[in-house]
Amino acid sequence: MTATRSRFHYNPDYLLLAVDLLGTLVFAIEGALAAIKGDLDFFGLMVLSFITAVGGGIVRDLLIGDVPPNSIRDWRYGVTAFAGGATVFFFYERFQQIPSNLLMVLDAAGLSLFAVAGVGKALEYKIHPFVAILMGCITGVGGGTIRDLLLAQVPTVLRADVYASAALTGAAVMIAGLKLRLPRVVVMTLGGIVCFVLRVVSVWQAWQLPRVLGR
Amino acid sequence: MTATRSRFHYNPDYLLLAVDLLGTLVFAIEGALAAIKGDLDFFGLMVLSFITAVGGGIVRDLLIGDVPPNSIRDWRYGVTAFAGGATVFFFYERFQQIPSNLLMVLDAAGLSLFAVAGVGKALEYKIHPFVAILMGCITGVGGGTIRDLLLAQVPTVLRADVYASAALTGAAVMIAGLKLRLPRVVVMTLGGIVCFVLRVVSVWQAWQLPRVLGR
Amino acid sequence: MTATRSRFHYNPDYLLLAVDLLGTLVFAIEGALAAIKGDLDFFGLMVLSFITAVGGGIVRDLLIGDVPPNSIRDWRYGVTAFAGGATVFFFYERFQQIPSNLLMVLDAAGLSLFAVAGVGKALEYKIHPFVAILMGCITGVGGGTIRDLLLAQVPTVLRADVYASAALTGAAVMIAGLKLRLPRVVVMTLGGIVCFVLRVVSVWQAWQLPRVLGR
Repeated sequence: MTATRSRFHYNPDYLLLAVDLLGTLVFAIEGALAAIKGDLDFFGLMVLSFITAVGGGIVRDLLIGDVPPNSIRDWRYGVTAFAGGATVFFFYERFQQIPSNLLMVLDAAGLSLFAVAGVGKALEYKIHPFVAILMGCITGVGGGTIRDLLLAQVPTVLRADVYASAALTGAAVMIAGLKLRLPRVVVMTLGGIVCFVLRVVSVWQAWQLPRVLGR
Repeated sequence: MTATRSRFHYNPDYLLLAVDLLGTLVFAIEGALAAIKGDLDFFGLMVLSFITAVGGGIVRDLLIGDVPPNSIRDWRYGVTAFAGGATVFFFYERFQQIPSNLLMVLDAAGLSLFAVAGVGKALEYKIHPFVAILMGCITGVGGGTIRDLLLAQVPTVLRADVYASAALTGAAVMIAGLKLRLPRVVVMTLGGIVCFVLRVVSVWQAWQLPRVLGR
Repeated sequence: MTATRSRFHYNPDYLLLAVDLLGTLVFAIEGALAAIKGDLDFFGLMVLSFITAVGGGIVRDLLIGDVPPNSIRDWRYGVTAFAGGATVFFFYERFQQIPSNLLMVLDAAGLSLFAVAGVGKALEYKIHPFVAILMGCITGVGGGTIRDLLLAQVPTVLRADVYASAALTGAAVMIAGLKLRLPRVVVMTLGGIVCFVLRVVSVWQAWQLPRVLGR
């Protein structure tokens, strides 16, 4: 509780919180758009907004042992996610006009932020660096995975695009930087940039991961 | 452990436990009926009975930090759920004769009870009232959601009916009542009645939540 | 942490760990094969390897309150699972030549091992014996269930074969043996053998569980 409250005393924490909530908002908007495509009702849309935005962080927190998860303990995440969902619900026509490239870039930013934050938090909880990389990835892609499951679809992240791999690479860069004893701020920035650039370039170049052709 | 044991000393706790197990039984029966429609075998039927009955409470307990969850710690929930499932398995023809309206009313009662109990427990665990409303809703609809996922279907609750919304409204009424410092018993009864009436009337009037028409 | 480290001092712990990692490897290979059939990419294949191998144990650990779960705390499980997945990815043609009976027998061995280990761990965490049987079953079949969900399929275990029932029977035998105060080693061996034999014979004899024919 004190950790949460201290956020209000120092500017850097305010900034981190603002950035985190911004990522939450972007993911919530994407969840709401997916809900409309999936023909869900208002409640379903709000659930998808919430779970897309905070699902990854919740799974990470359950796995590393931070219970109740941050976004359950701190009501601002829920409010932000629902605000994003409701905005899409009431102004859907406006959102349809947003260029898909802009959404993709915002999403890449959210992914980078969540992945880097996930690695950082896992390390704070004494998780082995190798597993911390996985936790960073789960933080970034977990929400979208649960969203796809709720729509009864195979999660896109398992099938297409350089998405989770971008998160993994950014997370791995971060761990490498920490091994080299680079300062924490540098390492987090570097990891985030690698993830972001890799994701954006991969969409631009239409990269796909290899796969084995089964029968 | 002492909290669990104290249930045996005072009558009110006995009553609460009985009501809770009754809700468990109703939800287990519904899970078993869904399993038969989904062509599951005996094991699948028992799993669906169990998860429909206690899944919502388990998710709530994991999120608020009551681990092991109540229905894992207390074997009576599992036994009740399996008894419900087995009864459906062996007397399915009888269950087919139950009017669907009766099942709906029993389900609405179970939903109300679980929602109210979920809010109460979340507040005991110092969860913010806004998030406690969500926890009440998850307690009520979580089991059915996991049941639908296991049947590879989009959860009904995300798509149709005033169901989760009834739980949310009942939960919100409860929080409002507590803010007004009404006695706990009054508040829980009121929240439960609101949820129950809203659910039953919505089925009777065929209410649906609004949705945005995607492409 | 000390418990984990002590594994390196005594031979018996080494043996247990080796057997546990072998089960992890078998399940990871099966997850990878399912991923290829489901047309997943390299990342999806690695996720399915991981989740099939350690998903059951993670769910069990979350439910009994061992957080972070063993396979998150100990990096060797992840490395083993990913090694199994990568081997399938790069040598898929070789794996296609493995007789399906051999895979089935290895899988039955993994199932037995996981079920018995799951019961043992649940009892250590003071879970009621009746619920411990369920925890053994979850440990054995949970990973495959999550794998099927990620492929948007109704989990096979709910629909076909004597699989979970074999795990439940082995687990129940173990509990019965402990009630009879048989030595722990005897009881675990006996439970494992019962599960293994039941599974293998059921495939050989094409046993199926009964089901109710719905409309």
